[in-house]
Amino acid sequence: MARTTLLRPVGLLALAVSALALALGSPALRAAAGPPDDGVLSLLPVPESVAVRAGRFRVDEGLTIGGSAPVSSRAFRAAARFMSRLSGRTGLFVKQDFLAGQDPAGEGGIRYVFERPGALLPNEDETYSLTVDPAKVSLAAKTDLGVLRGLETLLQLLSADEAGYYFPCVSIIDKPRFTWRGLLVDVGRHFHPVEVLKRNLDAMAAVKMNVFHWHLTEDQGFRVESKVFPKLHQLGSDGMYYTQAEIREVVDYAADRGIRVLPEFDIPGHSTSWFVAYPQYSSAPGSYAIERRFGVFGPAFNPADERIYPFFDAFFKEMAGLFPDPYLHIGGDEVEGHQWEANPAIQAFKKKNGLADNNALQAYFNKRLLKILIKHGKKMVGWDEIFQPDLPTDIVIHSWRGPKSLVEAARKGYQGILSNGYYIDLCQPAEFHYLNDPVPADSPLDDRQKALVLGGEATMWSELVTSETIDSRIWPRTAAIAERLWSPASVRDVDDMYRRLGLVSLELEELGLLHLKNQDMILRRLLGRPEIKPLKVLAQAVEPLEGYKRHDQATYTSLSPFTRFVDACAPESLPARAFVKEVDRYLTGRDPQLGAKIRRTMTVWKDNHALVLAALAASPALREIEPLSLGLAQACETGLEALAVLSKGEGRPAAWAEERSKVLAGAAKPAAHAELVVVPAIAKLVEACKGPGR
Amino acid sequence: MARTTLLRPVGLLALAVSALALALGSPALRAAAGPPDDGVLSLLPVPESVAVRAGRFRVDEGLTIGGSAPVSSRAFRAAARFMSRLSGRTGLFVKQDFLAGQDPAGEGGIRYVFERPGALLPNEDETYSLTVDPAKVSLAAKTDLGVLRGLETLLQLLSADEAGYYFPCVSIIDKPRFTWRGLLVDVGRHFHPVEVLKRNLDAMAAVKMNVFHWHLTEDQGFRVESKVFPKLHQLGSDGMYYTQAEIREVVDYAADRGIRVLPEFDIPGHSTSWFVAYPQYSSAPGSYAIERRFGVFGPAFNPADERIYPFFDAFFKEMAGLFPDPYLHIGGDEVEGHQWEANPAIQAFKKKNGLADNNALQAYFNKRLLKILIKHGKKMVGWDEIFQPDLPTDIVIHSWRGPKSLVEAARKGYQGILSNGYYIDLCQPAEFHYLNDPVPADSPLDDRQKALVLGGEATMWSELVTSETIDSRIWPRTAAIAERLWSPASVRDVDDMYRRLGLVSLELEELGLLHLKNQDMILRRLLGRPEIKPLKVLAQAVEPLEGYKRHDQATYTSLSPFTRFVDACAPESLPARAFVKEVDRYLTGRDPQLGAKIRRTMTVWKDNHALVLAALAASPALREIEPLSLGLAQACETGLEALAVLSKGEGRPAAWAEERSKVLAGAAKPAAHAELVVVPAIAKLVEACKGPGR
Repeated sequence: MARTTLLRPVGLLALAVSALALALGSPALRAAAGPPDDGVLSLLPVPESVAVRAGRFRVDEGLTIGGSAPVSSRAFRAAARFMSRLSGRTGLFVKQDFLAGQDPAGEGGIRYVFERPGALLPNEDETYSLTVDPAKVSLAAKTDLGVLRGLETLLQLLSADEAGYYFPCVSIIDKPRFTWRGLLVDVGRHFHPVEVLKRNLDAMAAVKMNVFHWHLTEDQGFRVESKVFPKLHQLGSDGMYYTQAEIREVVDYAADRGIRVLPEFDIPGHSTSWFVAYPQYSSAPGSYAIERRFGVFGPAFNPADERIYPFFDAFFKEMAGLFPDPYLHIGGDEVEGHQWEANPAIQAFKKKNGLADNNALQAYFNKRLLKILIKHGKKMVGWDEIFQPDLPTDIVIHSWRGPKSLVEAARKGYQGILSNGYYIDLCQPAEFHYLNDPVPADSPLDDRQKALVLGGEATMWSELVTSETIDSRIWPRTAAIAERLWSPASVRDVDDMYRRLGLVSLELEELGLLHLKNQDMILRRLLGRPEIKPLKVLAQAVEPLEGYKRHDQATYTSLSPFTRFVDACAPESLPARAFVKEVDRYLTGRDPQLGAKIRRTMTVWKDNHALVLAALAASPALREIEPLSLGLAQACETGLEALAVLSKGEGRPAAWAEERSKVLAGAAKPAAHAELVVVPAIAKLVEACKGPGR
Repeated sequence: MARTTLLRPVGLLALAVSALALALGSPALRAAAGPPDDGVLSLLPVPESVAVRAGRFRVDEGLTIGGSAPVSSRAFRAAARFMSRLSGRTGLFVKQDFLAGQDPAGEGGIRYVFERPGALLPNEDETYSLTVDPAKVSLAAKTDLGVLRGLETLLQLLSADEAGYYFPCVSIIDKPRFTWRGLLVDVGRHFHPVEVLKRNLDAMAAVKMNVFHWHLTEDQGFRVESKVFPKLHQLGSDGMYYTQAEIREVVDYAADRGIRVLPEFDIPGHSTSWFVAYPQYSSAPGSYAIERRFGVFGPAFNPADERIYPFFDAFFKEMAGLFPDPYLHIGGDEVEGHQWEANPAIQAFKKKNGLADNNALQAYFNKRLLKILIKHGKKMVGWDEIFQPDLPTDIVIHSWRGPKSLVEAARKGYQGILSNGYYIDLCQPAEFHYLNDPVPADSPLDDRQKALVLGGEATMWSELVTSETIDSRIWPRTAAIAERLWSPASVRDVDDMYRRLGLVSLELEELGLLHLKNQDMILRRLLGRPEIKPLKVLAQAVEPLEGYKRHDQATYTSLSPFTRFVDACAPESLPARAFVKEVDRYLTGRDPQLGAKIRRTMTVWKDNHALVLAALAASPALREIEPLSLGLAQACETGLEALAVLSKGEGRPAAWAEERSKVLAGAAKPAAHAELVVVPAIAKLVEACKGPGR
């Protein structure tokens, strides 16, 4: 595997970095000779090309930034935010009043130039070049979007030595591989107030993502103020919706960060909340209540009812005025079908119009909708299900089912974006998402077809998240997806991605993200005490159940508490990952030092159980974790036994291992909607004991 | 000192609390005989009267809440929030759909009743009675405000035992001592977005505060959108202002929590930001820029310029429509005077109108303003300086200078509120604020005059806080002020207040407050690493410089970074306070166990220095704390030496102590804008060594 880390002269060693011109051009990012390990750059996403040179640009109180942009412009504001974040990280009392004026004529300092404001459209130019010299930093781009992206890169270059802070001298030329780098946030199943969206928009900008997909309507809630049909939000949201002023605010906030806002109104299914106000547009009679449960539900618009089309015409006219993006997402997924089957008028309509099945009926609906969208200046985006015969090729297929559908769509001339493999709600490891490529190396598409794959979107479905936990479900793992969508396809060094992910995760905190700090908060609330160490130690070895398995443990609703131990656990435990890697390495080389480290970790985990038990006494809500804690203690006891065997070069009969495997199988069982993710690694230690020894 | 703690049957012991009817009526809260220490109630503020009885109301998934309020009412929404918080704390999947319906007819569960909606006015009835029986909880009040207050009390009663969660059986009758229990937030010197205000409004409600004083204009920023004079916010705010929609949102949010919003427009001084748009209304010619520095500045409105009165007429007409509260605060503090002195027209005006000095000129201005406010239906509130001859007695004097001015005002028939002693920006201990009484026991006022003292306000001046740190500067200390203003005057047990403060502090986190979690975040950012233990250990012994001393250390501006070690330190370190108390107790009784505990603490602090040094290497921004860390190590080394002497019952000559005092004096010096607050306690240990020993 190619080493994709980049060089950074950093640390306290006064590195005499010799003139090291390193071209890390796409597609072959190459390892650099020379600098020690602490001289590694930590850019995420990795730029297209980086050359590190000797020299350092000192960052001190005299630092200035200046550019060709007026005070009221996006680039000026981005530069002001850059200075504020830089000052925050360094504690420097920067003298320039960067809010009031950024002198365009000044020499030295950071200078940014661009030719024109970028348009918030697919395929807009985001290229930038960034050159750090000892006396100045030059950032140049075709559009101000390039300036925004380049400022994020520059901030990630911040380094420190004995003399203080500096930027290492580099020459970077960078542009994205994909033009559509999105994050979907589902505000239907759980509502997330504007500040949650804003901090996540800041985080997106930090890793150069550029599409915020706002999933605004669901069975569980209709979240947009409609002035044309006010009953929609009044009756369909429990009072939890965005006012039109707030929507404009979010759109402006996103635009200021070079991010498009793609609104989604999921129809004809996933639409119960609409019918609380307008039951007459559904496909079955009766009154409706906001859905509290999660799943795929029956209610769907009635495509055979001519009244719905003027309704949608008026509705989308209003929404088209609210959301400036040329694209509009109509959902279209998971129409359950029972309401359609059971409605004789719909069946008659299908017959009359030669619509063979429900797919054909939905295609009919989509074609009617498409006319309405076009009328209001919007292009249609929809989930896989909208990819049906007869629809024109200027719609965009959003693949949640798999890359196959993207290939199929591209072959027929449709543009596509990928979300399959980027379902961050499923608590899968960053590595899994990272290696999931919209256009993999073995793609059967030709170049023209490949160009139709615009990019992808991480999807934060929110059945199991609240505003307290959503940040930890999105970050830092989504940064790995951001890199997949921005960086050259060849950037695939998983270990190096994790190294940089840990640093980016810390950087995101300055933007107000709660992904790290809310773990402690949730544990403090559960325990009712400030000292939570035993719980944190246990959480190192635990992750929420992956995929949809958590739904098997309880009937979650939108009113359920998401305040339990499982909600404090990170979707991917980095300490657990480190342990698993260490065990793998140990089993390869039997390095005694590594063995000792693994022994220390398992000893801490084993001894932790007594401390956890003491904590449980005070907190009924925590008592469900006793099996996890006990399981970890037992697994570690077993692991320590195996490690002792291995370290002596001994072996054990298969029956010995089998007996211990039973203990481990017990420890691997889910509890408290979570699981011990270090057990398989311990099982490897036991397995390795089998036989006569070394 | 009377023991004011209240009884709570709690903990794992299945307490057989016998029928214990305890009337803790005002003013003499009395200690109760019987239950063990873990049976102590933790209500904050302490209610007027509490009787604890045998029995427990079990809290489980079947819990319901119901009342006499319709879905759209304030009480209904408060009950829904109560259930959500309860579910969050307990992890219980409560079955009732408390968002959709709270059955008023149901039996059992929590039942709330009230006679009428409360008005958001001083002296409105906030009384409630709360009775917990084993089979039901009854909450009754005259107004829905009483219901809101009672729900907060009930939530604080939540307890746990082996069987799960419960409310102990109690009878509580409660009402506030003062009707004006406020928190001022200065959004002028540093802007704080709506979400910061919202979470602090939630925190206020949790401790039964009811006035949000919104300090909206300052030299450093004009923070309100004016549609009549849009240049005010366009030019005076760097884009950081509240839209009128946001202001309505905050007012509604506050009202929903039973909190009044008192807007302040600070004039005629503290007004530089107004003059960026309207230099012609100032008292000196020239263009103006938004002030970045802090202090008392020259620019002031020109009372002799007749044009300003129609300007204020139109402006306050607009603001009167935006802020429904009958009171409006006009500031009036710290008119620096130079602009008035230097302006010949103003001097001529004074002469012509017989205005002897600037105070008289300001009184003239205020009288003109008063007419405008009255015209728009507002009563005037202002700082001490507006208390001048000739103003009618229906204005409210807000005392920042001291209790004397309140007494003086009350004697002349004016209403008053106290903020002197509640300046939470000065990083003083909660104890100081707690014992500061608007109407102290030795007040010279008669009862009629005492009734003119409406209450008080904690003041969060924001020179040195950002939205990242403001919560930690407000909470938990402001809860001590909340208790002073709500609870009977006799509730003054400082230690018990601190015990309850620690618990309330944790409870506030569920409302989104960042006061605890941002310490770690700031330290992580400074260090660039997730493991920050040595910094946290050092922070235990450190507090920001008290009072205005921090301004002597650097020239702070509104653009300075507030991201350094000092900003991560709590205004009052509770571990340091515990240490000081332990030393005091040790010196009284020389308890060897206590001595051992103090030794352990000092050993950890001493040994921490090496760990801090290692951390500093990576972070230039942290290097300023080296003297603090070294000082702590040296002080602890000295302290350990003294402790060894004392534990052997030995003594030492005065010269020995003197030498060590020099070390301690060095350690006590400020560094990094902070100081070691445990040094005086260590000095006591050294002092105690003097002489021949025991």
